[in-house]
Amino acid sequence: MPRYKAIIAYDGTNFNGFQTQPDARTVQGEFEKTLRKMNNGKTITIFGSGRTDAGVHAEGQVIHFDYPQTRELERMRYALDTQTPKDIAVKKVEIVSDEFHARYHVIEKTYQFRVDIGKPRSPFKRFYASYFPYPVDIEKVRRAMIDLLGTHDFTSFCASGTEVEDKVRTIYEANVETNEAEDELLFTFRGDGFLYKMIRILVGTLLKMGNGRMDETSIPEIIAAKDRNLAGPTAHPEGLYLVEVKYE
Amino acid sequence: MPRYKAIIAYDGTNFNGFQTQPDARTVQGEFEKTLRKMNNGKTITIFGSGRTDAGVHAEGQVIHFDYPQTRELERMRYALDTQTPKDIAVKKVEIVSDEFHARYHVIEKTYQFRVDIGKPRSPFKRFYASYFPYPVDIEKVRRAMIDLLGTHDFTSFCASGTEVEDKVRTIYEANVETNEAEDELLFTFRGDGFLYKMIRILVGTLLKMGNGRMDETSIPEIIAAKDRNLAGPTAHPEGLYLVEVKYE
Repeated sequence: MPRYKAIIAYDGTNFNGFQTQPDARTVQGEFEKTLRKMNNGKTITIFGSGRTDAGVHAEGQVIHFDYPQTRELERMRYALDTQTPKDIAVKKVEIVSDEFHARYHVIEKTYQFRVDIGKPRSPFKRFYASYFPYPVDIEKVRRAMIDLLGTHDFTSFCASGTEVEDKVRTIYEANVETNEAEDELLFTFRGDGFLYKMIRILVGTLLKMGNGRMDETSIPEIIAAKDRNLAGPTAHPEGLYLVEVKYE
Repeated sequence: MPRYKAIIAYDGTNFNGFQTQPDARTVQGEFEKTLRKMNNGKTITIFGSGRTDAGVHAEGQVIHFDYPQTRELERMRYALDTQTPKDIAVKKVEIVSDEFHARYHVIEKTYQFRVDIGKPRSPFKRFYASYFPYPVDIEKVRRAMIDLLGTHDFTSFCASGTEVEDKVRTIYEANVETNEAEDELLFTFRGDGFLYKMIRILVGTLLKMGNGRMDETSIPEIIAAKDRNLAGPTAHPEGLYLVEVKYE
């Protein structure tokens, strides 16, 4: 049976996250509903590059699934795109080797986090950016982000409730830009993988540092302590976007 | 009683337009509900620069109302902003002369219209841009827009059901830009006023011309005919934004 890889985008606002849950609308649940219709009512399971939480968005989530027919790719993309709900878009479909696995073969992920810093909060961004109306010294945030780069045990930036044992991750890129026209801050994080709620805890911590309520040189200490209590609060999910997933 | 002028933004998605209607959620209705709470349960009527239809957005709608107390302006703005629903934002409040009228004293309005031309349609723009996935020759659109400039009787670009008798309006500026990073077209129209659904009919017509299904040099003929049937279709409301209103 051919294995398909697809790049999908979704507006996370009305989903209870990516992963199937009983009695909750999820991206996986809706996508599998569409595949079932395209497969004579028989279930096809999809595998994502990872979960995203309720309210979190994706511009480039990657999934794979096995489908019995070899279809022309643009037709397959169009069928999936138009039959899934409007808050899911199917951007690209390709046929890959049976060996490909959307989760196990990830080598790099990029997330972005949008922060609305305007006064008042934009009604157009209430589901698409987190809101932080307090002063932020962007140079302090940049100073702090340098210490995130490289390979570290990120236990301090991982929410409890995860089963993952190995909390060592490598961050290749950590940036923040000001978009003055839009009254926004845009954080970008690129790494080999991220822990549960890690980006949101990183952003919550960095904003607190930029606001002067935490020492911007304390990232190495926080990392060394391996203690979630030393990091800042968890930023809200609506600012977070899974932008790109790369494979070998 | 002091007269207040306010600049407000709203996400039109969940409103049945600006103007109060029985049993429908409207911007005016929600705003007046807030003012009533701030006025011991007594009704205060607001006057907008004009109506916007269901689904149409505003970045810079202007309203006025009379409120019995003279309050510090930033406090008043903050109170209104936080007490109105999250899809309404109050950007600016000032006290104006008793003579000021948000509707009668308008001298200029600017509207923008966003068109998502990406494939697939972005799930993030489904309520914030109209969708047009067909080829558009932007130079044809620009060619056509030149003929809109100036003072004309725009009967052909006015939806039926309006009571306005004088359909002569002056367009000062008509532009279209391509935002390639966003896969979008952005139309801008600035004029002394616009008729019922006029911008949406203009955009529907211009897209059809850009797509080669209508002659891009035919705007003068369409205007001269004073016949709505000669213009193109009405573009969907979700792409339309009232951006700015100017007064004497």
